[in-house]
Amino acid sequence: MYNLLKGKKGIIFGALNEQSIAWKTAQACYREGAQLVLTNAPIALRMGEINKLSAECGNAPVIPADVVNMDDLKKLFEESMKHFGGGIDFILHSIGMSLNVRKGKAYTEIDYNFNQKTLDISAMSLHRVLRTAWDLDALNEGASVVALTYIAAQRVFPDYNEMADAKALLESVTRSFGYYYGIKKKVRVNTISQSPTKTTAGSGVKGFDGFMAYAEKMSPLGNASGEDCANYCTLLFSDYAKMVTMQNLFHDGGFSFTGVTQQVIDQMEK
Amino acid sequence: MYNLLKGKKGIIFGALNEQSIAWKTAQACYREGAQLVLTNAPIALRMGEINKLSAECGNAPVIPADVVNMDDLKKLFEESMKHFGGGIDFILHSIGMSLNVRKGKAYTEIDYNFNQKTLDISAMSLHRVLRTAWDLDALNEGASVVALTYIAAQRVFPDYNEMADAKALLESVTRSFGYYYGIKKKVRVNTISQSPTKTTAGSGVKGFDGFMAYAEKMSPLGNASGEDCANYCTLLFSDYAKMVTMQNLFHDGGFSFTGVTQQVIDQMEK
Amino acid sequence: MYNLLKGKKGIIFGALNEQSIAWKTAQACYREGAQLVLTNAPIALRMGEINKLSAECGNAPVIPADVVNMDDLKKLFEESMKHFGGGIDFILHSIGMSLNVRKGKAYTEIDYNFNQKTLDISAMSLHRVLRTAWDLDALNEGASVVALTYIAAQRVFPDYNEMADAKALLESVTRSFGYYYGIKKKVRVNTISQSPTKTTAGSGVKGFDGFMAYAEKMSPLGNASGEDCANYCTLLFSDYAKMVTMQNLFHDGGFSFTGVTQQVIDQMEK
Amino acid sequence: MYNLLKGKKGIIFGALNEQSIAWKTAQACYREGAQLVLTNAPIALRMGEINKLSAECGNAPVIPADVVNMDDLKKLFEESMKHFGGGIDFILHSIGMSLNVRKGKAYTEIDYNFNQKTLDISAMSLHRVLRTAWDLDALNEGASVVALTYIAAQRVFPDYNEMADAKALLESVTRSFGYYYGIKKKVRVNTISQSPTKTTAGSGVKGFDGFMAYAEKMSPLGNASGEDCANYCTLLFSDYAKMVTMQNLFHDGGFSFTGVTQQVIDQMEK
Repeated sequence: MYNLLKGKKGIIFGALNEQSIAWKTAQACYREGAQLVLTNAPIALRMGEINKLSAECGNAPVIPADVVNMDDLKKLFEESMKHFGGGIDFILHSIGMSLNVRKGKAYTEIDYNFNQKTLDISAMSLHRVLRTAWDLDALNEGASVVALTYIAAQRVFPDYNEMADAKALLESVTRSFGYYYGIKKKVRVNTISQSPTKTTAGSGVKGFDGFMAYAEKMSPLGNASGEDCANYCTLLFSDYAKMVTMQNLFHDGGFSFTGVTQQVIDQMEK
Repeated sequence: MYNLLKGKKGIIFGALNEQSIAWKTAQACYREGAQLVLTNAPIALRMGEINKLSAECGNAPVIPADVVNMDDLKKLFEESMKHFGGGIDFILHSIGMSLNVRKGKAYTEIDYNFNQKTLDISAMSLHRVLRTAWDLDALNEGASVVALTYIAAQRVFPDYNEMADAKALLESVTRSFGYYYGIKKKVRVNTISQSPTKTTAGSGVKGFDGFMAYAEKMSPLGNASGEDCANYCTLLFSDYAKMVTMQNLFHDGGFSFTGVTQQVIDQMEK
Repeated sequence: MYNLLKGKKGIIFGALNEQSIAWKTAQACYREGAQLVLTNAPIALRMGEINKLSAECGNAPVIPADVVNMDDLKKLFEESMKHFGGGIDFILHSIGMSLNVRKGKAYTEIDYNFNQKTLDISAMSLHRVLRTAWDLDALNEGASVVALTYIAAQRVFPDYNEMADAKALLESVTRSFGYYYGIKKKVRVNTISQSPTKTTAGSGVKGFDGFMAYAEKMSPLGNASGEDCANYCTLLFSDYAKMVTMQNLFHDGGFSFTGVTQQVIDQMEK
Repeated sequence: MYNLLKGKKGIIFGALNEQSIAWKTAQACYREGAQLVLTNAPIALRMGEINKLSAECGNAPVIPADVVNMDDLKKLFEESMKHFGGGIDFILHSIGMSLNVRKGKAYTEIDYNFNQKTLDISAMSLHRVLRTAWDLDALNEGASVVALTYIAAQRVFPDYNEMADAKALLESVTRSFGYYYGIKKKVRVNTISQSPTKTTAGSGVKGFDGFMAYAEKMSPLGNASGEDCANYCTLLFSDYAKMVTMQNLFHDGGFSFTGVTQQVIDQMEK
């Protein structure tokens, strides 16, 4: 604990339950001295678990918002600013949903209406969040926005399905909006490309366990955990990363730059 | 003329007029010995210019198809296979449209309904085309699919607006579908990332001329022309490129790997 | 056979024996109508096999040259130009050698004198070749230079050892010299990043067979063969690729953009 | 000040004078609670300025070492471990030197003996440092190594000359050694790719001022300063970045993912 985020105010999107990276990031940010607002889709909040997180984080307000509803987002930012008595210093975007994955549709037979929802919720939602903040001038000078992504945006992992395309879109929105918000107010927007992590979202992916074991064997440091990711987020939210923007930062134990490991070769030869 | 595509059958999407890269690619493919079907959106065909291209290309059939309409696409492939008396060997996807750009909306204030259309027409259309071919088993073993893209998918060029995000999505679809179609039938799917080119589509982008001059100065070989791009497409359609797939290939006179040129530095110092 | 290289004159570096990619590229270029000069290190030529290739390629002259000896290179270019009665249109650089690999030194215990030779022979040799051509003005306008590389330049494949670093250096030289030669004379310089290929050089790498099997399983189209690579080289040497420069082009059946395949996951779960 | 590095012990290579990024990084690490050893080439230390830095940093020992001399490096690590009473937690490698640049040789006419020294001092030195640590088991579990690099490793900036190739080599060594040290002892090895910075080294590059102005205009956040870079280094040295390895991290105000800015277009149109 370093007080890295002392005096900072942030909004955390996507804390569903204790497994969520967003949940752990909220805990880490609070531990580092930040004040928080927690938000998620109304349907996700109905589970009620988030109240436990709120209690842990100094009774952080929980404000429901559907990320594809501009009115909800407006209300979220307005209430957050009111609560904080000022602007926002950081945002975590940890949002992804694919009806095609849930319904077990293969990539080659996706439903296009579902796909449109996937892109809107998982990727364009970042645009909607940033644009709402932009319109309300809700972010403080030098604020830091992080969205979570996955390396399927760069290389094909078949079970990841259409979420790969959604993450590629998300990373492009990160760069595009990062450009404008950087020039306007020195706001930085980045993605963290995290190891496969056993969350409710992750577990929904077919073949997830087999893949997670493969990633572990393919990463010189092993897979990064949700806690590790939360800690890394606090670094990016801190002032010491204030000149980093429009980047996709791999947080994956070296997986992204490992072509093969001896462990994998050994397994292939069995 | 090398007869690189002798005996091959292809579908060309997106030839609007003589400036179009798709138009020039159709000419180049025909010159290299291919038989063609030409297609575009019904509204684009109404201009009638494409009949001139058809005449030049051995009276290639012109079949209207709205790329976001699955029935149209099915009909297009069925009629093409009937015309050719067999499967398809190559496809050019040269399709992009942004209502937000047309309406002069800045990236930070895009209309989300327009955006959804942009993504569907400019990117998911490739999925729709490939999926239609997949369902009908319309592509021959080793067929080659090329979609045109732009480097804004990797780096921000502000005037390119939401099309940057659409191209990033397009390139991801290329990889994702390329994976499946490669395994199934050795079909290859790639994008060519072309220099800025003075087409009807290109000219619609605000500040296009200034940008084109900048790109010319930033490319050791200068900007690649539409004719150059057409010729490069024929290489990718040929059998000699049969092991290349899921790639984004820059065709840009070296722009993509040039950080700065002396010419640009000189201009900056004026 | 398309006569893609009709009337073109080229120099092929590195044809050791029938397995060599350079050998197959010479055959392919000759088949496509080119005239050739063959060259290799004096010690490699002593084996005498290359005379067979020369005979197949219209009695192409065989000119020994040590690629780290500037006098040898000067003589090679002068004699080639004399033989061709003019300038050179294309060059294949297929050169790599690591004494540390040969001696079985692990990456963490390489001999630095050996390493210096590895970098000089495998990477800086491209600079030496291009610089000799530059000084003699030996390349024709729009000439095409291709060097063979491997994806270990981007991601770690442990058995590839220090050759990974040499290839990264080679690819940088490609960009750097490509910039200058592009501006000066529209010469293009690119690398092809080829699938693992069973050549004499490839076979020298420890664990090569296991790795090759892994790459086969990880590539949607399977590994690209030496013949495929030779054909792809002829495309890049052709005029239709005249605006492509400073690129690293993966020719690998899709390996480079595949994160994992079902086949590999299945094997991991055994 | 967060005490991010409390209790950690590090070695800083390359602090020449107050402008050096290494100098500022030493200050930042000390401020964050670390103990330091400072080192540089004997000839660089002769200037004597480093004693001032030593005094500022709790009388950190100054140990001369020529980075291409294995005996010097061995002595450096042995003395450092003796001083610290244990292993090393972090290392900054901020080392680069090009005799060809100093002598004003163009890239197309470099002296190959000078070039070999450039590669050895600027890139292979990282291998030498890590290998010395490896042999002596000098790094603690989870130690963090950062080397400074520049985007010329990816794209051509002509005035950067052969240093571009050296940086590409350095980044490859980072990945290669990072793989082994990650598996062995969870040590992470990364590069930071910093904005052009007005140091003694930077100023040696021809046309540096013009280029720095260009980079400023091309970066949404402007150029990152040496102080910013020093702070970012402390993040990577901290435990919160313990799962990040084999990465090249751009610290450049967004330059790396900006294709062009309005400011640059405006200037081009003058």
